[in-house]
Amino acid sequence: MNPAPRNPEDRPIATLLAPDIAALLDEAPADVAAETEDIHPADLADVAELLPPEKLQEFLAALGPARAADVLEYLDEELRSEFLQEITASQAAELVTQMTPDDRADVLEEMDEERAEQILSEIPTEARAETEKLLSYDPDTAGGLMTTEFVSVSADTTVEASLESVRAVARAGRKEAMHNIYTTDAQGRVVGVMSLRELLAAPPGAKISDIAWSEVVSVKPTADREEVARIIANYDLVAIPVVSESGHPMGVITVDDVIDAIQEEQTEDVQKFGGLEALDEPYSQIGFWAMIRKRGGWLSVLFIGEMLTTTATGYFQEEIGRALILAVLMPLIISSGGNSGSQATSLIIRALALGELKVSDWWRVALRELPTGLTLGIMLGGLGFLRIVIWTKLGFYHAEPDVEREYLWVGLTIWTSVTGVVTFGTIAGSMLPFALRKIGWDPASASAPLVATLVDVTGLVIYFVVALFILRGRLL
Amino acid sequence: MNPAPRNPEDRPIATLLAPDIAALLDEAPADVAAETEDIHPADLADVAELLPPEKLQEFLAALGPARAADVLEYLDEELRSEFLQEITASQAAELVTQMTPDDRADVLEEMDEERAEQILSEIPTEARAETEKLLSYDPDTAGGLMTTEFVSVSADTTVEASLESVRAVARAGRKEAMHNIYTTDAQGRVVGVMSLRELLAAPPGAKISDIAWSEVVSVKPTADREEVARIIANYDLVAIPVVSESGHPMGVITVDDVIDAIQEEQTEDVQKFGGLEALDEPYSQIGFWAMIRKRGGWLSVLFIGEMLTTTATGYFQEEIGRALILAVLMPLIISSGGNSGSQATSLIIRALALGELKVSDWWRVALRELPTGLTLGIMLGGLGFLRIVIWTKLGFYHAEPDVEREYLWVGLTIWTSVTGVVTFGTIAGSMLPFALRKIGWDPASASAPLVATLVDVTGLVIYFVVALFILRGRLL
Repeated sequence: MNPAPRNPEDRPIATLLAPDIAALLDEAPADVAAETEDIHPADLADVAELLPPEKLQEFLAALGPARAADVLEYLDEELRSEFLQEITASQAAELVTQMTPDDRADVLEEMDEERAEQILSEIPTEARAETEKLLSYDPDTAGGLMTTEFVSVSADTTVEASLESVRAVARAGRKEAMHNIYTTDAQGRVVGVMSLRELLAAPPGAKISDIAWSEVVSVKPTADREEVARIIANYDLVAIPVVSESGHPMGVITVDDVIDAIQEEQTEDVQKFGGLEALDEPYSQIGFWAMIRKRGGWLSVLFIGEMLTTTATGYFQEEIGRALILAVLMPLIISSGGNSGSQATSLIIRALALGELKVSDWWRVALRELPTGLTLGIMLGGLGFLRIVIWTKLGFYHAEPDVEREYLWVGLTIWTSVTGVVTFGTIAGSMLPFALRKIGWDPASASAPLVATLVDVTGLVIYFVVALFILRGRLL
Repeated sequence: MNPAPRNPEDRPIATLLAPDIAALLDEAPADVAAETEDIHPADLADVAELLPPEKLQEFLAALGPARAADVLEYLDEELRSEFLQEITASQAAELVTQMTPDDRADVLEEMDEERAEQILSEIPTEARAETEKLLSYDPDTAGGLMTTEFVSVSADTTVEASLESVRAVARAGRKEAMHNIYTTDAQGRVVGVMSLRELLAAPPGAKISDIAWSEVVSVKPTADREEVARIIANYDLVAIPVVSESGHPMGVITVDDVIDAIQEEQTEDVQKFGGLEALDEPYSQIGFWAMIRKRGGWLSVLFIGEMLTTTATGYFQEEIGRALILAVLMPLIISSGGNSGSQATSLIIRALALGELKVSDWWRVALRELPTGLTLGIMLGGLGFLRIVIWTKLGFYHAEPDVEREYLWVGLTIWTSVTGVVTFGTIAGSMLPFALRKIGWDPASASAPLVATLVDVTGLVIYFVVALFILRGRLL
């Protein structure tokens, strides 16, 4: 409809198109397909989301099954499940059969099981078997990301013959992943890979085995999606084959699915690090009580954990009664531990996620974080010491007379305890992600609030012990 | 060297290869190129990093300039800059000329300016102009990510003629981005796009304009890399054209560079959220003092901010003296605000980064977070109340006698103040990222420690005011 190239940043095409298409559906539904044929299905999905609900079915029907299937792949999950629930199982089966095998499996996975079974039973046998196999993999693994339709040729064919068979596949209009072409030996094992570009550039008479790269970077079906993302990023790939233990190709993972996986993984990590369960749904779509559950669980655990601080502080109640300055400084001192711990944790979580660090590097990290924590602690403690000195000298601080007299010792208490608390916070914050990965958890569960809670309790103990040691006979 | 497909997860090929290649360099350097010709340059870069430093130059020389350039693209930044510093400027120019224009610009950008100028001056004129233009863009924008070599054909050529010109480009061995082919009108403006696969599938007699999609999704050179990533992910693209205001193609951004940008952006976000300046370097490579600077800056700011808690607590010192239980409960109560604030912040930062929320949605979020915060606060406060009741009833808590007598009122103080603190923390945590974006900062700077510090000070005031109100005449 629009001949100029489009910048999605500044022109939300869907809002422009939706009224036009709504009108067209009323007046001339037969024209809808022709009028929208050059529009990206992602945009048509946005249009579909803006249409009044009763028009959605009309719109997809007007597009025809192949285009409708493309649009469905980009449609909001909830809306798609609802739509596939409302039409008949055989209509739904016709639509999902048009999808690539991996998208088909993803769509069925979101639906309630009974309905998914009904739709599956209406899918042609071969596609059904393929889909059932994909559904058997964990969606967070290579098997769950891969599609089973890709192009492979025998290693001993010629370039021209291979090019012809690639063109035939492309013309058949099926949805094979075609970024790369894989070559196989007589036993059907993967022995080489080349890009479509390399095939086109090859001299006509050559044999495929002379053109293809014999080093094929691949993953196993059980590989974690984070691992797949790391490999795709490391080798700058647009597709990676999934290969069985015996060397036979099982499917291909394309980069678009990997980007989605990276984004999801990252959203989970940020949310976990913020101290809540991963939402698994966009912020604006999740229900009120589901949100309370995801947030309230961890908050309650942390609150109960933090109750230990009352035990610690209660134990030193008498000392606080003798020198109230200890209570006044308490929040400042323990928060420095939480902050430095949260920094260290974020660094290590990310380095582990990117593969820059391995679990076995923990001691190297500990050796590095120890002097870092000490240095930072001495710095911050020095700031605290200065504050006490300056405030007292300037007469800003209205303390009990004995605190004013012993201000240098109070300052030293801050300096020493902040050094201890920050060092402990840094070490605890950097080791927690390793410890979690070691016991098989996601290191990102080492959230900032969890670290702060851990460090608060220990920090209080460090603080009061230092105070007892330095101030005994002076204020205590 | 290895015919079976390779799982990089379980076989770090570089460690296997490095000794072989080191030996080969001593015995028969001429064989190195042939022996490694099927190995991915990313793996050869890993090998290069494992070789003794004096062997690196020998190794790259043995590979020849084209392969050496490929390996350099994957080499560790620091090592690459060092290497390009050690060889002559004209040798360096020969290598970087072999790179794609975007990688060439990236490599020169990392080097010190004087050396980069020397190398640039030795590059052939056309490539130099191209590189200088790319260097003029901010590396975090579409212009900084794009490469300037891509394939375009006039919209009125035939399919066969286009295919021939594509094959000619591919055979010339230059490094054009060739995932998509763009069509242009008589004025050279972009009017269409098709994939290599679509070109192969087209019927021989057809005109290109009948095959290409007339809706071209593109970005402007000034678009932020986060925006580019969002569009690539949304439309499942492998490449996106960068188009000027006048509609002329300026370059193409390929998905591998977008993945790198996503990873970098996410690393920055996690580190900022953890409360430090983004490192811009891998954890294990950054120097000790650089690390202290990146971490110490924010820690000091937060520590100074947190000093306000001593002012707040100092103000209520007398009340604490009268009822020490107030000091005992202080860490528990203020930490609940920090934790709920950190949760809310992580949710909003991520939703903003993914484009699920816009700045203008702030009031909708506030309306949602208010009841959420209240509900969570009532829940947690209730836990605190229960704790006081149970502890007192079971005789676990050794408080002053009047606290034991008034325990229900103490419990009510906790319940009310935790409700207030959590509600405030939730609202403050969810609004801070909006406020930062509004003033042009990165919302990810709303770190967990920053939120905790903000909430600590206000939380203490809420707590003591509630306590004064409920406990006056009882304990105070």
